[in-house]
Amino acid sequence: MADSWRLTEIVAQLGGQLLGDADASISQVATLEAAQAHHISFLANSKYRTQLSGTRAGAVILGQADADATRIPRIVSSNPYAYFAKVSALLNPMPKIEPGVHPDAVVSRSAQVDVTASIAATAVIADGAKIGAFSIIGEGCSIGANVLIGSHARLYPRVVIYQGCVLGDNFIAHSGVVIGADGFGMAMDEGCWIKVPQIGRVLIGNDVEIGANTTIDRGTLDDTVIEDGVKLDNQIQVAHNVRIGAYSAIAGCVGIAGSTEIGKYCRIGGGSAILGHLKLADHVDIGACTLISKSILEAGSYTGIFPFDKTEAWRKNAVHVRHLDKLVERIRILEQQVSSLTGKI
Amino acid sequence: MADSWRLTEIVAQLGGQLLGDADASISQVATLEAAQAHHISFLANSKYRTQLSGTRAGAVILGQADADATRIPRIVSSNPYAYFAKVSALLNPMPKIEPGVHPDAVVSRSAQVDVTASIAATAVIADGAKIGAFSIIGEGCSIGANVLIGSHARLYPRVVIYQGCVLGDNFIAHSGVVIGADGFGMAMDEGCWIKVPQIGRVLIGNDVEIGANTTIDRGTLDDTVIEDGVKLDNQIQVAHNVRIGAYSAIAGCVGIAGSTEIGKYCRIGGGSAILGHLKLADHVDIGACTLISKSILEAGSYTGIFPFDKTEAWRKNAVHVRHLDKLVERIRILEQQVSSLTGKI
Amino acid sequence: MADSWRLTEIVAQLGGQLLGDADASISQVATLEAAQAHHISFLANSKYRTQLSGTRAGAVILGQADADATRIPRIVSSNPYAYFAKVSALLNPMPKIEPGVHPDAVVSRSAQVDVTASIAATAVIADGAKIGAFSIIGEGCSIGANVLIGSHARLYPRVVIYQGCVLGDNFIAHSGVVIGADGFGMAMDEGCWIKVPQIGRVLIGNDVEIGANTTIDRGTLDDTVIEDGVKLDNQIQVAHNVRIGAYSAIAGCVGIAGSTEIGKYCRIGGGSAILGHLKLADHVDIGACTLISKSILEAGSYTGIFPFDKTEAWRKNAVHVRHLDKLVERIRILEQQVSSLTGKI
Repeated sequence: MADSWRLTEIVAQLGGQLLGDADASISQVATLEAAQAHHISFLANSKYRTQLSGTRAGAVILGQADADATRIPRIVSSNPYAYFAKVSALLNPMPKIEPGVHPDAVVSRSAQVDVTASIAATAVIADGAKIGAFSIIGEGCSIGANVLIGSHARLYPRVVIYQGCVLGDNFIAHSGVVIGADGFGMAMDEGCWIKVPQIGRVLIGNDVEIGANTTIDRGTLDDTVIEDGVKLDNQIQVAHNVRIGAYSAIAGCVGIAGSTEIGKYCRIGGGSAILGHLKLADHVDIGACTLISKSILEAGSYTGIFPFDKTEAWRKNAVHVRHLDKLVERIRILEQQVSSLTGKI
Repeated sequence: MADSWRLTEIVAQLGGQLLGDADASISQVATLEAAQAHHISFLANSKYRTQLSGTRAGAVILGQADADATRIPRIVSSNPYAYFAKVSALLNPMPKIEPGVHPDAVVSRSAQVDVTASIAATAVIADGAKIGAFSIIGEGCSIGANVLIGSHARLYPRVVIYQGCVLGDNFIAHSGVVIGADGFGMAMDEGCWIKVPQIGRVLIGNDVEIGANTTIDRGTLDDTVIEDGVKLDNQIQVAHNVRIGAYSAIAGCVGIAGSTEIGKYCRIGGGSAILGHLKLADHVDIGACTLISKSILEAGSYTGIFPFDKTEAWRKNAVHVRHLDKLVERIRILEQQVSSLTGKI
Repeated sequence: MADSWRLTEIVAQLGGQLLGDADASISQVATLEAAQAHHISFLANSKYRTQLSGTRAGAVILGQADADATRIPRIVSSNPYAYFAKVSALLNPMPKIEPGVHPDAVVSRSAQVDVTASIAATAVIADGAKIGAFSIIGEGCSIGANVLIGSHARLYPRVVIYQGCVLGDNFIAHSGVVIGADGFGMAMDEGCWIKVPQIGRVLIGNDVEIGANTTIDRGTLDDTVIEDGVKLDNQIQVAHNVRIGAYSAIAGCVGIAGSTEIGKYCRIGGGSAILGHLKLADHVDIGACTLISKSILEAGSYTGIFPFDKTEAWRKNAVHVRHLDKLVERIRILEQQVSSLTGKI
């Protein structure tokens, strides 16, 4: 059970304007719908304001425009959702993990593990690797030779970092993440594929989080680069020599092909794919399941999906897609004929 | 080599009607094409009935309609494919695994492992976790704090279950599965992403099977829920707060975005994606590689894919997709003109 | 730092024609853009020939057509990119790994590990498994019962091979690969799914490389087969009973459904999907993100993607896709009307 906090204590730490009973105290966050008296909830969007009337929450976080929409004890913030995230972090601190190397971990003598770091059972740290202050390496992680990991990093169980990669501070990787595997590079030679050695690294900035089973390949010659503040969801594939600009956020199951550069503050919808050797400007938003096949030089929102339908209707319509070119030609001919008829009458 | 079974023994265990030589015995299952005299095969669909004439199978399972289509010793069942599955399970029992904790496993003193359960080498069981009767935890699995696992569960090597998740009886997870990693939740605050703590759990019912490298995220506030009898293939991504209804089956590489609710007995084709905050009714079938972008309230089959073609033909046709709106306008004008011409003549 | 090689030494080993200063020596590979005096670079395509003038590379590999386009010491090859791959392999040999079984590995007494092989800490080798000469099994790998692995194989950390699978020589699997998990096979029986036992294996030829977190399921009755020289990128899903022909190359995030057969020398673009029970001829190329829904019997290039656009434009155009059938009918009526009008005038 989380500790109890008075709203005044929360405002003292996080700012915001407190309205209503300042002595109200809460111990956990919840949705407006599920909240009870010991919960604090939030209203991030005025259009859901009617939900306020039904909630049993003990307190609520909301924006200036909704400040008077309820009498529940409340904190007014210019960014209620971000405020809510901070309150939730206060109420739900990460469980304390004892520093030190578990006796069932396997750590090379030439590795440097900060005394405040924690290495779990069955983790393996190779020669020359360096683990920064307060970082946590979960069970079964494999940290390759000469890998550098900053401070306050958290690697959940079964993360693999190949040799030579560099990870910044506050790095989070969820289970199954693989960083620095070989890029998909080969040359055809007399009917066989020859492997092109992948000698670049993966460089990751500060404040990056990577979701479960996401893979980021090392560069062929130069490095693959993930800039500060990038957030990657689960099961994303980032190919060799890609660069992802700072604070871009990418949803699950996206694939990014080799050498593509994504700008800063981009948002890529789940299941999308971006071909290789392209550039995306800053502030580009890509819809879900869209294939980006050429560079995008202008900020904005881009989409390309086939609208779904009842299968029978889809089949009837989709068959014409394969004949669109002929269809357009038929229309052109009609236009000529009609124009000619119009001239005759 | 599997043990030999007489058909009478099989029928005694599994029911069905035995026709032909009751003393025939078989020791393994095979396709009609590959079967030899010691194999039992099956015919699930009358339209493949001609395959019966060529088979060398020692016995065959078939439906009432095909009961007289061969003289091979045969078992007649109302559901030949399900009957076949049961026979195969009889002939191919899971290898026995010794109960007990391997000396190279790492089990917390506060974990409760049933004496009939088996914990393999290099598995790690955290504080307060509970492993039910006859459950098997494979090598390198990581079972987080306070995780509850029912009886007769089987976790193949390298499965990760994050803290607090609850898994039912007869649960199967293949290698690389990650259950309970943080959902993809964050708030933008002054140009940076702030993490929204993910404090919900993953709750999984009984008789659920999950394929290799599939990921199921924990809920943000409430729980992510997988109901009884759900079957998930490999490399599926289930986001936070999703609910999947009982007995739904989802093929490989599907992505389901946050807070979406899928009904019971749905079937989702491989590579499909379902956007967040949607509802799918019971008995909805989704074709492969289809993006579902709005709720589906009616049972039935739904599809939305771009039909493939030779690349040259595709290019010719696809270019018009970007001008469909103008094309429709040209048709509207033609209709006006023709109508006007018709009036004049 | 890589050792230094004189160009004459390289040509002595790899062939090719040396032009310019034969005593020139280099120690690493780089792109034309990034190269310094100690680097050798390459020009694989004459259309980038202008990049030669700006490079600071100490040497360059190029084709006959470009042999005189620079005075930099150079090696002329009929296949510059393949030559470059070979030079890079010379300069970047795999780090030597000590043979032997690490004391923190767990190897069954009935497993046979060649004395030249290397088994890393926390790897687990089950009963009856066989590891060939000079093969390397990384940390946390799980090698199932009776698995056969050829010589010179390299399994990076956390690869799982289920029981009975057979892997050829020079096999490479990156972290998170899962080979031999159960295929997605079940039968509906009285409202519940029954598991169909998956008793086939996965058979993998020689010279196969498999990318991070790729999964290959075992066959239901017969085997799943990957032929010699196949290259699979990351996060690919290969279902039960698939066969992939020799030297085919498949980019990331592709899904291949059950029992499909892919020919030799096929190339499948990233994010594509191939439905089950299909056949693809040899030398078939599939574009990225294309769904192949029927067999392809003729070599060639095939594509089927919805072209992306600004979201507003996409919305305007895509809405008509759902009414194409009616649109075509409107055109047919127009054609009749115009023909009738033409007859009247």
